[in-house]
Amino acid sequence: MTKIGIIGGTGYTGVELIRLLARHPQAEIVVITSRKESGRRVSEVFPSLRGVCELTYSQPDSDSYSGCNVVFSATPNGVAMTIARELMAAGIRLIDLAADFRLKDSTVWEHWYGMEHACPELLDDAVYGLPEVNRDAIRTARLVANPGCYPTAVTLGWLPLLKAGLVDASDLIADAKSGVSGAGRGANVGSLLTEAADSFKAYGVTGHRHQPEIAQTLMQLSGKPTGLVFTPHLTPMIRGIYATLYAKLVSKQDSDLQQLYEEAYADEPFVDVMPAGSLPETRSVRGSNICRIAVYRNEQRVIVLSVIDNLVKGAAGQAVQNFNLMFGYDEKTGLEIVPLSP
Amino acid sequence: MTKIGIIGGTGYTGVELIRLLARHPQAEIVVITSRKESGRRVSEVFPSLRGVCELTYSQPDSDSYSGCNVVFSATPNGVAMTIARELMAAGIRLIDLAADFRLKDSTVWEHWYGMEHACPELLDDAVYGLPEVNRDAIRTARLVANPGCYPTAVTLGWLPLLKAGLVDASDLIADAKSGVSGAGRGANVGSLLTEAADSFKAYGVTGHRHQPEIAQTLMQLSGKPTGLVFTPHLTPMIRGIYATLYAKLVSKQDSDLQQLYEEAYADEPFVDVMPAGSLPETRSVRGSNICRIAVYRNEQRVIVLSVIDNLVKGAAGQAVQNFNLMFGYDEKTGLEIVPLSP
Amino acid sequence: MTKIGIIGGTGYTGVELIRLLARHPQAEIVVITSRKESGRRVSEVFPSLRGVCELTYSQPDSDSYSGCNVVFSATPNGVAMTIARELMAAGIRLIDLAADFRLKDSTVWEHWYGMEHACPELLDDAVYGLPEVNRDAIRTARLVANPGCYPTAVTLGWLPLLKAGLVDASDLIADAKSGVSGAGRGANVGSLLTEAADSFKAYGVTGHRHQPEIAQTLMQLSGKPTGLVFTPHLTPMIRGIYATLYAKLVSKQDSDLQQLYEEAYADEPFVDVMPAGSLPETRSVRGSNICRIAVYRNEQRVIVLSVIDNLVKGAAGQAVQNFNLMFGYDEKTGLEIVPLSP
Amino acid sequence: MTKIGIIGGTGYTGVELIRLLARHPQAEIVVITSRKESGRRVSEVFPSLRGVCELTYSQPDSDSYSGCNVVFSATPNGVAMTIARELMAAGIRLIDLAADFRLKDSTVWEHWYGMEHACPELLDDAVYGLPEVNRDAIRTARLVANPGCYPTAVTLGWLPLLKAGLVDASDLIADAKSGVSGAGRGANVGSLLTEAADSFKAYGVTGHRHQPEIAQTLMQLSGKPTGLVFTPHLTPMIRGIYATLYAKLVSKQDSDLQQLYEEAYADEPFVDVMPAGSLPETRSVRGSNICRIAVYRNEQRVIVLSVIDNLVKGAAGQAVQNFNLMFGYDEKTGLEIVPLSP
Repeated sequence: MTKIGIIGGTGYTGVELIRLLARHPQAEIVVITSRKESGRRVSEVFPSLRGVCELTYSQPDSDSYSGCNVVFSATPNGVAMTIARELMAAGIRLIDLAADFRLKDSTVWEHWYGMEHACPELLDDAVYGLPEVNRDAIRTARLVANPGCYPTAVTLGWLPLLKAGLVDASDLIADAKSGVSGAGRGANVGSLLTEAADSFKAYGVTGHRHQPEIAQTLMQLSGKPTGLVFTPHLTPMIRGIYATLYAKLVSKQDSDLQQLYEEAYADEPFVDVMPAGSLPETRSVRGSNICRIAVYRNEQRVIVLSVIDNLVKGAAGQAVQNFNLMFGYDEKTGLEIVPLSP
Repeated sequence: MTKIGIIGGTGYTGVELIRLLARHPQAEIVVITSRKESGRRVSEVFPSLRGVCELTYSQPDSDSYSGCNVVFSATPNGVAMTIARELMAAGIRLIDLAADFRLKDSTVWEHWYGMEHACPELLDDAVYGLPEVNRDAIRTARLVANPGCYPTAVTLGWLPLLKAGLVDASDLIADAKSGVSGAGRGANVGSLLTEAADSFKAYGVTGHRHQPEIAQTLMQLSGKPTGLVFTPHLTPMIRGIYATLYAKLVSKQDSDLQQLYEEAYADEPFVDVMPAGSLPETRSVRGSNICRIAVYRNEQRVIVLSVIDNLVKGAAGQAVQNFNLMFGYDEKTGLEIVPLSP
Repeated sequence: MTKIGIIGGTGYTGVELIRLLARHPQAEIVVITSRKESGRRVSEVFPSLRGVCELTYSQPDSDSYSGCNVVFSATPNGVAMTIARELMAAGIRLIDLAADFRLKDSTVWEHWYGMEHACPELLDDAVYGLPEVNRDAIRTARLVANPGCYPTAVTLGWLPLLKAGLVDASDLIADAKSGVSGAGRGANVGSLLTEAADSFKAYGVTGHRHQPEIAQTLMQLSGKPTGLVFTPHLTPMIRGIYATLYAKLVSKQDSDLQQLYEEAYADEPFVDVMPAGSLPETRSVRGSNICRIAVYRNEQRVIVLSVIDNLVKGAAGQAVQNFNLMFGYDEKTGLEIVPLSP
Repeated sequence: MTKIGIIGGTGYTGVELIRLLARHPQAEIVVITSRKESGRRVSEVFPSLRGVCELTYSQPDSDSYSGCNVVFSATPNGVAMTIARELMAAGIRLIDLAADFRLKDSTVWEHWYGMEHACPELLDDAVYGLPEVNRDAIRTARLVANPGCYPTAVTLGWLPLLKAGLVDASDLIADAKSGVSGAGRGANVGSLLTEAADSFKAYGVTGHRHQPEIAQTLMQLSGKPTGLVFTPHLTPMIRGIYATLYAKLVSKQDSDLQQLYEEAYADEPFVDVMPAGSLPETRSVRGSNICRIAVYRNEQRVIVLSVIDNLVKGAAGQAVQNFNLMFGYDEKTGLEIVPLSP
């Protein structure tokens, strides 16, 4: 039994972590902190957890996590970095679901996140928690930077092509669409049902924080500088990321892309390469940790369709997958959830 | 041309007023105030109004409305009453879309709205702006209290029965359902798409401010004390009120309820009694000022189904209808909008 | 390991059965039949089941189910009754998720379902599969009539009151709201997103097949003739039933209704009586087998709010609960799913 | 007053035509045909039209349209071409909202639409009804091919760039998203709320009929062969098209793209070039004939965002705009509708 602390369990990634860990046979959540809801029962804030989680939110303080083997930080950006040093010193491992440790270059990080990094010396140590790329490093990591939702869908979509060097890494377009839960549980006008339902829009067209995160991994995979246009959109649904990826083949020679993808992901428990001609839908992964991918060729273009549940494979589920790796459990433990459809 | 001021034009009733008045041949909006958005163009806040409204929000001050013949107050409760006295003194008529002047008894008002009434002496003067009940009084009113959305749907649903004395006024149940725009454009967690979509819930079961408002008019119509259970619900759609109304016939004798309704509303431009056996849908009135009603009998029960668009007949449209009456225009001017379906 | 056949696994209750049984440690689905999809893989029709169900739909014929201990019939009404006799003769138990065996009186059944009953002699034998009412009978039943979705939500909502004789059974109103999946996976215009989204409507106001089903159980609980007005509505969401129930207390004397409900359901694994003042939401049970209930008093009225997921506690989940009882498994096996929220 | 016939007024473009023409001061609908609904009142099928349209559907026959000046065909593909010759012979003008006359090359048409063309000799005569491209030709056209919804949004989005020769016409990507009403009012499983809500998917990735239609106009605008990747997606909303367009600038030299767009559309009544940095939303054009466009530059890439209401500017509204041109009315007549927001 591994003892777990959750920081900031009042957002959507927090409640999703609890949903998953509550049914994980080797996980025991011992503390959930929240400044705002301190003293209230978790199940009072989230009635879906009645009978599932008996904990009460507690005020975070210096020894909140002393009994934990690992802490999941499900807070806004900029919080995990303020306690990471302390946790490391105490031998407590950390999985940060926010962005504090995702970029290797603190200057780039500070540019995109608009604040000074509190512990840049830990960036080298942090492992980017995409198991399909960094599985071995994750096993022994003290600090895991859990990937963003868009980066997960986009990177898994392009991984086989970039590793094989089949496409021009300098000419990539990711047109991505997210459900509204990606914006979190904060009260903002743009996420109201009345504003976001029955409508569609792009945002972040002049620059989105996930662009450098994606580019960093793509560059690692291809070994080449990456030219990536990334356009995120808001679509009127609760969960789900849909990435439509456009790349250009560098050679006119025929490659069997379907086979390339099937082989690349043959042993991956959570990546499902669909049969040729398939059209993935976000609902086919709702509530599950699966990424489903389809690959198409249109003359010299490769079009990849990649879908995940942003709160699971794009956040809490991937965090649990990393947790399993870090603590030597079967990678699928607690994550064999059948998608909810319809 | 009648000159109009709008107070608080940044909420949904405000933007809806602008949509309607912009195409009204006798209306000229001369000022729109907003503390929060002062200095910004209206069409910047609401891009749907680009090319429609060229005004800029201004800071409300004592002579903001001096050039107006009438002011529409589309603010939260408690604002209109602070300027009503001044407007009356200046001979400017007032249509309040909030609740400040809806209840005749200031004690009851203060109980439900949790604040002291700023000008209780005006309550007697104020006319409850439901044209189907108070048309003549509205024509000459200086101050119109525009009805709430639920009260409009519920009252119009029961009006013919109560006027005819056919049902037991002490045993009424209104099970009502509202789209999320009824909660306004304020940033609150409960109205997020992620919280309100794909879900359904009752609220205000122990008491809702529209209950005394409905009861007051029902009592006026029936001349008897009213026993009303009112249960509002939130349904995952943007616009629309659906009222399912249950009452008991007082006599076992046969009345032709369909005929009763058709006659009662024969001359009403905005109440549509549907043919026997019809099932109204909220989308059939989307964007329009129409209330559609169907009436059913189930032994001694009468079940009435009544639908409106909460932002039009339940707010801004009814306000324009009142405006037309007050200024001697044809009641339908600016309101002959075909519902948007699908 | 119990061997299971599923008839008609191409509708929503079918795919939901597969979702639940696939993770049930004692269940093995050995055959899924479908006339329409015969020969196709289940996971081709429902990509959410890729990696979960490796079966192929087969054509139903006389010995399709010969290797089964139990058959779940997830077809339209009128199919299960055509094979029930044969299954009984072969010693195969049957759980019918449609309505063929729900009403005890074949004349009433034939009136509401518009066809002749194929095996009226089995109606007496059939056990109405609401565990909270008929648990012991279900354990030994050969044939279980799995309740309708509305009847489950409504009956559980009123059960404690009617058993205690506290309300007038002749004056009951159930105003119920359903998500669109209640209409099934058939292609009909009224269930299109374009027709059903962003709208709300009542239907079946002059009579709905679930009315006699509910009335039959309520009469059994109260021992008295039942006067029930039942109004179903369609609400723009995928899953969920919301029942708002109105009844009248027969005595003016004070009863602690909260305590009554808590005691009535103290040992029920899938009924959650929420704390006084709670407002259940359908999303709080999404994907789970839980019924959440809140009870309110308004003078002589009792208002009960009862929510379920129509496809789980209202269909497939309850069927699995019955299956567990019939085969001696812990009632909760395979059903300890945390609701998906948001 | 111009007399109008509508063929096939039971789909969404049909009901939308009626909504618009009913408030057009110079239009009089004299006949609406439908094989399926013949004999039923239009307002019975579409209750939103109660009080708006008093016509009854009639059976189409050879002289159905004899009293008409113009016929709008709002049927599936392949119907208008069967009556076009006859209408032309009778001097009745035709606006086809389907695809029969959109492609100039009948061989290409027959390839994409899978049927023989019934009157290829009329293809040359037909004018592609995009006023922003072909205004003068439309004025005198006998036969107008009303553009598809995707082609309208995409073509208007790229028009200024292609006319100015600023981008590489051989390397264009249109990632487009449509609301479900684009799939029509036919009963098909994929358009059910339960299948299409709360989900997102691409479709037609290997080829969509709007691709050659778009390419044909782009080639006309640029005078060069066009290489266009077009990926349509289904998004869970009722109305709206969102096109995200990617192109590459041919020169490194600075052009003021914002100014280019503003000038190109300065005199267009229904194209709104938004201020630099704007993010159009489909809801900002809901129910209106407006196309809103924003243009961005990302190094050598130009990203254009273009939104329309697929049923208005993408179908019925554009048809009315063409009608106005053809009959010498002000182009905006009947189309000055303020978008419905929220």
